[in-house]
Amino acid sequence: MTQATHSLATRSPTALDQIDTPAALISTARMQRNIDRMQAKAHALGVSLRPHVKTTKCTEVVKQQLAAGAQGITVSTLKEAEHFLADGVTDILYAVGMAPHRLPQALALCEQGCQLKIITDNADSARAIVEFGAAHNAVFDVMIEIDTDDHRSGIKPDSQELLVVGDILHKGGMRLLGVLTHAGSSYELNTPQALAALAEQERAGCVRAAERLRAAGLPCPVVSVGSTPTALEARDLTGVTELRAGVYIFFDLVMRNVGVCTTDDIALSVLTTVIGHQREKGWAIVDAGWMAMSRDKGTARQQVDFGYGQVCDENGQVMPGYLLASANQEHGILARTDTPDLDIESRFPVGTRLRILPNHACATGAQFPQYHALSEDNTLSIWSRFHGW
Amino acid sequence: MTQATHSLATRSPTALDQIDTPAALISTARMQRNIDRMQAKAHALGVSLRPHVKTTKCTEVVKQQLAAGAQGITVSTLKEAEHFLADGVTDILYAVGMAPHRLPQALALCEQGCQLKIITDNADSARAIVEFGAAHNAVFDVMIEIDTDDHRSGIKPDSQELLVVGDILHKGGMRLLGVLTHAGSSYELNTPQALAALAEQERAGCVRAAERLRAAGLPCPVVSVGSTPTALEARDLTGVTELRAGVYIFFDLVMRNVGVCTTDDIALSVLTTVIGHQREKGWAIVDAGWMAMSRDKGTARQQVDFGYGQVCDENGQVMPGYLLASANQEHGILARTDTPDLDIESRFPVGTRLRILPNHACATGAQFPQYHALSEDNTLSIWSRFHGW
Repeated sequence: MTQATHSLATRSPTALDQIDTPAALISTARMQRNIDRMQAKAHALGVSLRPHVKTTKCTEVVKQQLAAGAQGITVSTLKEAEHFLADGVTDILYAVGMAPHRLPQALALCEQGCQLKIITDNADSARAIVEFGAAHNAVFDVMIEIDTDDHRSGIKPDSQELLVVGDILHKGGMRLLGVLTHAGSSYELNTPQALAALAEQERAGCVRAAERLRAAGLPCPVVSVGSTPTALEARDLTGVTELRAGVYIFFDLVMRNVGVCTTDDIALSVLTTVIGHQREKGWAIVDAGWMAMSRDKGTARQQVDFGYGQVCDENGQVMPGYLLASANQEHGILARTDTPDLDIESRFPVGTRLRILPNHACATGAQFPQYHALSEDNTLSIWSRFHGW
Repeated sequence: MTQATHSLATRSPTALDQIDTPAALISTARMQRNIDRMQAKAHALGVSLRPHVKTTKCTEVVKQQLAAGAQGITVSTLKEAEHFLADGVTDILYAVGMAPHRLPQALALCEQGCQLKIITDNADSARAIVEFGAAHNAVFDVMIEIDTDDHRSGIKPDSQELLVVGDILHKGGMRLLGVLTHAGSSYELNTPQALAALAEQERAGCVRAAERLRAAGLPCPVVSVGSTPTALEARDLTGVTELRAGVYIFFDLVMRNVGVCTTDDIALSVLTTVIGHQREKGWAIVDAGWMAMSRDKGTARQQVDFGYGQVCDENGQVMPGYLLASANQEHGILARTDTPDLDIESRFPVGTRLRILPNHACATGAQFPQYHALSEDNTLSIWSRFHGW
């Protein structure tokens, strides 16, 4: 933020000082820069971008991603699919393994005009999809989840099960749409070289799975990969058709430690108010506790531990050395990292407002029913986000 | 739960198998037992009980606490106060230091019939309360927050500031209602002896503060102490008038490690469905990730680390050794703690439903817009809870 914005913030009746705390603030300028960066990266790599909207669960944000060129969205729950379909987004990939008991809900989405893509990584679910499809005269678009980095779900690219699942789906009359993978272990890395290598591993594994399916006579038009770090550090995506990424929309301190953004790229912060002090300890007590920040301590195992978040002044200027050191439900304890700041009371008097950059934007955003979106010209919009399943 | 309940659960059309996953389940029988236990403890100690409702944010639960004998409630946000006032609860203590900018909201609550008690631990806020009161012809009930265990907010019982703040409030025309403290460091202990000693420290410090105020000619009718562990292990509360506690309503794995409950007392669990496996690793993938469990890893620093939660069967029977070992947003990785369970796929086939006991009931509950309350006769009720500020 510029100095010009700072002075405006204290004058305008629609700006920051009108918001009660704690609040989840979006810098729309930073968000737009993040959107443009990922869209340009996908373009440069020759693939389409299907953002993961679980980070924001917010229609206003998603519409800006689509306006910038995103082709379809990725969701983590069928509630997200229902919500975004109601808001006019039809091309939706539900990227969590299909639980058979949710097939009626998936069918209802299709019947309402959703071009829903579902995924599976095992023969049992694949059979359940086929049987349900047959019983309801429904043809689902199904992708097979591939495990390219051992971190969670998926079938190994070279496993026999890949062809078994492909066969079940294809012969069972489903549209076998392709393969997808997510190299979530990228969050554990922190150099461009390591991320580029993992991106190549992710690409190669997913393309290999696609080639094996095709060699077995099975259709596989879509090859979908991605995580924010591998997407941004990938050098070549030959054979891939689609990139997925989520947290890039806001970035956060975990991504800063991974090395794919700076603190100045982080578009989400929590606005908070100082409510007291412990002078001798150098603590300021603020009204952002873990209920506001979330319990995510994702930077604790990284090179720089930001506690519950990095402190900035009300206008977003980072205050080096000041962290939200610990948190109770509605209390945060703000402290300097090296030595106690014995002037904390005069530095941050009761009523002082600060912003805290979060460890993990997906987790912090989820604590709030709405975002306060602040533009560079200091206009404020309230954007609702949804909650639950 | 009894075997009789197990067999009913598979037959009744209103029971467990009708609930989609992930869901926050309450065992109402356990909850009632927990309510009765804390109420009996307060009675035995000769004090009133003012439960902290931030744990549940749920009117149905709070009404049961009041029906059992609770006198008033404690809240952590003014939104809670507004919500419970609208539902007919008038005696409300807002137990987070009063931020001056929230005084208009507090006044509006009083004008709507709320017997609101606010708190402060510093002269700046006390002056702001007095000035606002004078400007609006309002007399607030104010308590002074005392720090008896160095863990967060409050004035030391023997500090000069105590009398300064008391004087500001009393001479400024506010009703100085008393003192309150919260020995939150009790969460770090794990023996009855250590908890009893901390309870005595909490009592003695808060009573000492009250005596100093009275000796200075200031009113101090209420002496309020509490945390779930110190409340349950306190042996004597001479001089105290009121006990506050929150998480006892559900208990959780952190409280199990502190030693004030067993896993069979835990009244909140997350119902989840198996959606896949990694056979060679002995993993089952379930649809309860950190979005359902929260990111709270509170047992990681205790004697038994339960990961993201203890696995139980669908009916709530603990399955020793099986934990939710790690979590992504909508994926949980369930594993055995000692050696990989290579039979995981046959033990927990796709579609298997399990319950996960949470580390921290306050954090896990907050992830859900509603509870599914299951009674011993297997009737199910939906109880909404609210979210945000």
